[in-house]
Amino acid sequence: MATCSADLAPLLGPNATAAADYICNKFSDTSFAVDNTYLLFSAYLVFSMQLGFAMLCAGSVRAKNTMNIMLTNVLDAAIGGLFYYLFGFAFAFGSPSNGFIGRHHFALRSVPSSSFDYSNFLYQWAFAIAAAGITSGSIAERTQFVSYLIYSSFLTGFVYPVVSHWFWATDGWASALRTDDFLFGSGVIDFAGSGVVHLVGGVAGLWGALIEGPRIGRFDHSGRSVALRGHSATLVVIGTFMLWFGWYGFNPGSFNKISSFYTSGNYYGQWSAVGRTAVTTTLAGCTAALTTLFGKRILTGHWNVTDVCNGLLGGFAAITAGCSVVEPWAAIICGFVAAWVLISCNKLAEKVKFDDPLEAAQLHGGCGAWGIIFTALFASEKYVREVYPSRPVRYGLFMGGGGRLLAAHIIQILVIVGWVSVTMGTLFYFLHKFGLLRISADDEMAGMDLTRHGGLAYVYHDEDESQKQGTQM
Amino acid sequence: MATCSADLAPLLGPNATAAADYICNKFSDTSFAVDNTYLLFSAYLVFSMQLGFAMLCAGSVRAKNTMNIMLTNVLDAAIGGLFYYLFGFAFAFGSPSNGFIGRHHFALRSVPSSSFDYSNFLYQWAFAIAAAGITSGSIAERTQFVSYLIYSSFLTGFVYPVVSHWFWATDGWASALRTDDFLFGSGVIDFAGSGVVHLVGGVAGLWGALIEGPRIGRFDHSGRSVALRGHSATLVVIGTFMLWFGWYGFNPGSFNKISSFYTSGNYYGQWSAVGRTAVTTTLAGCTAALTTLFGKRILTGHWNVTDVCNGLLGGFAAITAGCSVVEPWAAIICGFVAAWVLISCNKLAEKVKFDDPLEAAQLHGGCGAWGIIFTALFASEKYVREVYPSRPVRYGLFMGGGGRLLAAHIIQILVIVGWVSVTMGTLFYFLHKFGLLRISADDEMAGMDLTRHGGLAYVYHDEDESQKQGTQM
Amino acid sequence: MATCSADLAPLLGPNATAAADYICNKFSDTSFAVDNTYLLFSAYLVFSMQLGFAMLCAGSVRAKNTMNIMLTNVLDAAIGGLFYYLFGFAFAFGSPSNGFIGRHHFALRSVPSSSFDYSNFLYQWAFAIAAAGITSGSIAERTQFVSYLIYSSFLTGFVYPVVSHWFWATDGWASALRTDDFLFGSGVIDFAGSGVVHLVGGVAGLWGALIEGPRIGRFDHSGRSVALRGHSATLVVIGTFMLWFGWYGFNPGSFNKISSFYTSGNYYGQWSAVGRTAVTTTLAGCTAALTTLFGKRILTGHWNVTDVCNGLLGGFAAITAGCSVVEPWAAIICGFVAAWVLISCNKLAEKVKFDDPLEAAQLHGGCGAWGIIFTALFASEKYVREVYPSRPVRYGLFMGGGGRLLAAHIIQILVIVGWVSVTMGTLFYFLHKFGLLRISADDEMAGMDLTRHGGLAYVYHDEDESQKQGTQM
Repeated sequence: MATCSADLAPLLGPNATAAADYICNKFSDTSFAVDNTYLLFSAYLVFSMQLGFAMLCAGSVRAKNTMNIMLTNVLDAAIGGLFYYLFGFAFAFGSPSNGFIGRHHFALRSVPSSSFDYSNFLYQWAFAIAAAGITSGSIAERTQFVSYLIYSSFLTGFVYPVVSHWFWATDGWASALRTDDFLFGSGVIDFAGSGVVHLVGGVAGLWGALIEGPRIGRFDHSGRSVALRGHSATLVVIGTFMLWFGWYGFNPGSFNKISSFYTSGNYYGQWSAVGRTAVTTTLAGCTAALTTLFGKRILTGHWNVTDVCNGLLGGFAAITAGCSVVEPWAAIICGFVAAWVLISCNKLAEKVKFDDPLEAAQLHGGCGAWGIIFTALFASEKYVREVYPSRPVRYGLFMGGGGRLLAAHIIQILVIVGWVSVTMGTLFYFLHKFGLLRISADDEMAGMDLTRHGGLAYVYHDEDESQKQGTQM
Repeated sequence: MATCSADLAPLLGPNATAAADYICNKFSDTSFAVDNTYLLFSAYLVFSMQLGFAMLCAGSVRAKNTMNIMLTNVLDAAIGGLFYYLFGFAFAFGSPSNGFIGRHHFALRSVPSSSFDYSNFLYQWAFAIAAAGITSGSIAERTQFVSYLIYSSFLTGFVYPVVSHWFWATDGWASALRTDDFLFGSGVIDFAGSGVVHLVGGVAGLWGALIEGPRIGRFDHSGRSVALRGHSATLVVIGTFMLWFGWYGFNPGSFNKISSFYTSGNYYGQWSAVGRTAVTTTLAGCTAALTTLFGKRILTGHWNVTDVCNGLLGGFAAITAGCSVVEPWAAIICGFVAAWVLISCNKLAEKVKFDDPLEAAQLHGGCGAWGIIFTALFASEKYVREVYPSRPVRYGLFMGGGGRLLAAHIIQILVIVGWVSVTMGTLFYFLHKFGLLRISADDEMAGMDLTRHGGLAYVYHDEDESQKQGTQM
Repeated sequence: MATCSADLAPLLGPNATAAADYICNKFSDTSFAVDNTYLLFSAYLVFSMQLGFAMLCAGSVRAKNTMNIMLTNVLDAAIGGLFYYLFGFAFAFGSPSNGFIGRHHFALRSVPSSSFDYSNFLYQWAFAIAAAGITSGSIAERTQFVSYLIYSSFLTGFVYPVVSHWFWATDGWASALRTDDFLFGSGVIDFAGSGVVHLVGGVAGLWGALIEGPRIGRFDHSGRSVALRGHSATLVVIGTFMLWFGWYGFNPGSFNKISSFYTSGNYYGQWSAVGRTAVTTTLAGCTAALTTLFGKRILTGHWNVTDVCNGLLGGFAAITAGCSVVEPWAAIICGFVAAWVLISCNKLAEKVKFDDPLEAAQLHGGCGAWGIIFTALFASEKYVREVYPSRPVRYGLFMGGGGRLLAAHIIQILVIVGWVSVTMGTLFYFLHKFGLLRISADDEMAGMDLTRHGGLAYVYHDEDESQKQGTQM
């Protein structure tokens, strides 16, 4: 608010410093109130995605593993809460740092500060658990519970925070907020995390699913793919709508502040950019859903609701990187391509006998990677200038901005794939090595709810039957 | 903000124009931030109603058509996203217009402007898809999928936008915002759309359901009504609560701005009117729910949760027109009558063998129409003056305001019924004529999930059974 | 805003009163807009907890009583809406009062005022129905429907409002907002209602469940406890996440205003305290969930998702009293202990053959009481000074604040238990006496959905079967 006082005092006349301070301080108070309201409610929306993930996962697995997968989703949030508080936030945003990993704010020490309020922590925590939620889908229906606890802690407490430091902290080595010449003088524009969240979660899931192999029965003796249908399309739809709802916190919320003006007194300001981000997000998802609808109708002959849901989410995962810096019409292109990326990744997965019950690696990994490239192609000069004002402007290749941004974004994909492979891949490998990763074939056939979680998730029939099914055990 | 500067500059003394501008610009920035925060989060709430519609519909149909109805709800949102972006918003709000249909802002050209920001588009899109969601309920369980795609595009892209232009655009021919003498010097007060959204959706559904006729088995050989119970009361309750939750975006959000004062410095301002609107909405719904509970207890002998849910929603649909301009006590009257309107419409529907699986035509059409009349009877002078300051005051007949508003509102009902009948009725008629509307009797008996959507929505039992039920196909 | 003008006018120079008034009035308008936005959206979040309660309850009962319990949850909200409007809010906040019960604002007379806007009513209504929702869980699966209607009206219309008057109204006898020396010069710090809401709901449920006794089959002939498993863990998880989501309205929303500064112009203000409250809430819940996970794993041998959900909610119920005045690290202690309190209460309940299908008395009563004690031990001087500035500071015993607060809080527990026992205990006793409380054994075995609510909640199988199961009746 020093700027405000310095600007206003001379306008008010001589000896007006105290008056200007008084007025500017009140504007400052108001901005803090408005921005925190906006950020906190955005954080609540992002948190609601955890219900979305839980239902999407639950509906996509067989009834016998429902309790198992839902428990992992509840625990992602709970473990994430503690670990992100203790050190995750510090690793991610504890600047000044060496560019690789943050080192302040452990257990929220020195928060609030002029850089971070509690709302920032809450918002970032909700992001961290989203990454863990993605991965849990890939390894569903065959993973030992203890492995979940270990990978989820490691991912939310270390692997993910480090990546978010690189791209989102003011002094992360690849951050678009840096002011030096590093990384082609560009840095990476990954506004809400197609790379930082979705690609990270997807690659982690890829390694987990790859190392433990497909579920029993997923590919038959002749090697043909057999659909192991999830037990409830209704839950898939609930999950999808909740994720859609929450994405309005995820993408438009990533501005962190809404009260910043571009030109004071003008109707066009950061609030418009926040709204535009909600619009690009919506259009990318809608287009991907419709593309999937017709694409799959042609390929499979029926109108499939779970495919449409996944297509929609693929569109969201893709637009997440560039949502704030592309035009609405570009978001339509983003969604259209995302749908085909997902369809292709799924084809490829079938061909190589890769089994991911939620298509999470394909969806968040594949469409997330596409979103990173898309941003480097379509980012608009005007919007980049407004959203990332601190650095020399670089923008989309197809918008006349040259290839520096694209080069930086290719680097982003490579380092994320590398880092997550080294950390999470190694972790899953050792869990596998020590027999902690996959459950026994008997347990897998019986389902984990009966063998590990005290009974089935559903008891629809009368007492006596329920006795037989669930309670006796 | 010109007003602000003009007022403030002389108060600050000579040569204070620059200071006044500076201060007033900052107030302007703050208002934009606050109003956009309020409108965007309201839009997210309205969007969450789509989950509500999906679950209400899913729970109200038989298990064999669950995938089908949910897919239509997902697609309402997705199709609406594209079509409302491309031309729906332009038809609705593209002023200056000829009063009948807007003609600017196609594909959001010239948005943001001083009139509309992205948040306005997002908010209005969420309304458009709500109208489509209403109609999908009426024609559930027997309609070809391709018909859904056609009517949903036509409704969200053209029919609904035109109606919203008439009543909500500044130069719509029947708008309460006009300043000329047209329509009894009154214009129509349909604040959040009992007519524009609910009656439109309801009448469209009425024609669809009427033209394709009742579901097989809905009326037996002797013509007696047979309840075809929905498959899950739980989903109906989830849907109802989500709609209730979302209605707090729908009604209080329709102010678009919350930071406007009535008398600067007073605790009573538009923020109070927003709160009052939430209260009238709540009271109308609660009263309708309780009236239905006891009414149906007397009529049927049991306490019925789905009836109570529908009664509640009928109360909401009715209060939607007048929510911002009536006293809380009047909202109780509104809800009480709405419950009986719904009960009566349902009786009538049974008598004439009209089959609407969701009671959508009765609920949104019948209670919506009642809400339009109610507003013309109970709108308070004070509140109308505050909420619609641009025009000579006209208010409720029972509040001493004379009959001009009532006359205008009767016109509203007539033109909406006329317009939707001509457009949507004709559309459904031609779809029927060309054999695109209704599925075959065999498909209807088997259920659309199996025949069109790749399998049943639920696979609760073990693998082997599931193989038999769903996957094999 | 008088303060603002008085401060600003002299700074602006001679004859600047009008200018200062103008500017300060605009700041006042902005604050009202921001605070109402924050409070209204918080109210909507709290309302969404009603969906949470409904699903938590539905999932925790047997399929045959699903319609029954969901109907009670819908009606809690509806009855609460009317009764809290007519007199609940007046009893609770109708100051000036005699300290025991409020006596103004019946049917929202004189609202809005400088003290209360409509948003305050809506927010408090959402709290009142939460209390009723808690109790409905305790007496599930065996209570006559008419008893629900009676107790719910009495609780939301009288019993709960009186308690909230004591602790939350400015002149309630035990309120932390009083400025006199009453109650050890301390008053009670029950910020969002571990006592006012959770203990009240829990004790009411305790008496209801105690007086009507356990469900048939809950304890076998030899007196051993038999688990009567709820019919859907999925609904329990949906309910838990919705409650978690809504708790961000419940706790951080209880500030009512977010735009207040502590030192004008500083980044640290009430917005930070709101954020901190969201963080303490999160950490307490997460810790309680993890403690329950491992605690129950050791005790029962499996990883139980419904236990983890209940543990999580116990952590939330406990932190609710102190959420705004404790450090984040203390919230971890709060949650850890809450988990063990719940486990112990459940053990005790089994031992004394107390049957509460939702563990609601144990969870909201037991953990609520622990939360009251916890606050008296860990409230920080700094935060108490900021959040409750009107009274001489008293804070946590373990933080060096002495025992006055603890003494006041023990009194709180005693008077709440006493008041609710006298009122609700007596009510349940008379309902029992007049044969209105418990359903017949036959009805209990058959389930209330069939006998009272017109059929079962679910019809998953095809037409013919559904005819047999549901429709015929």
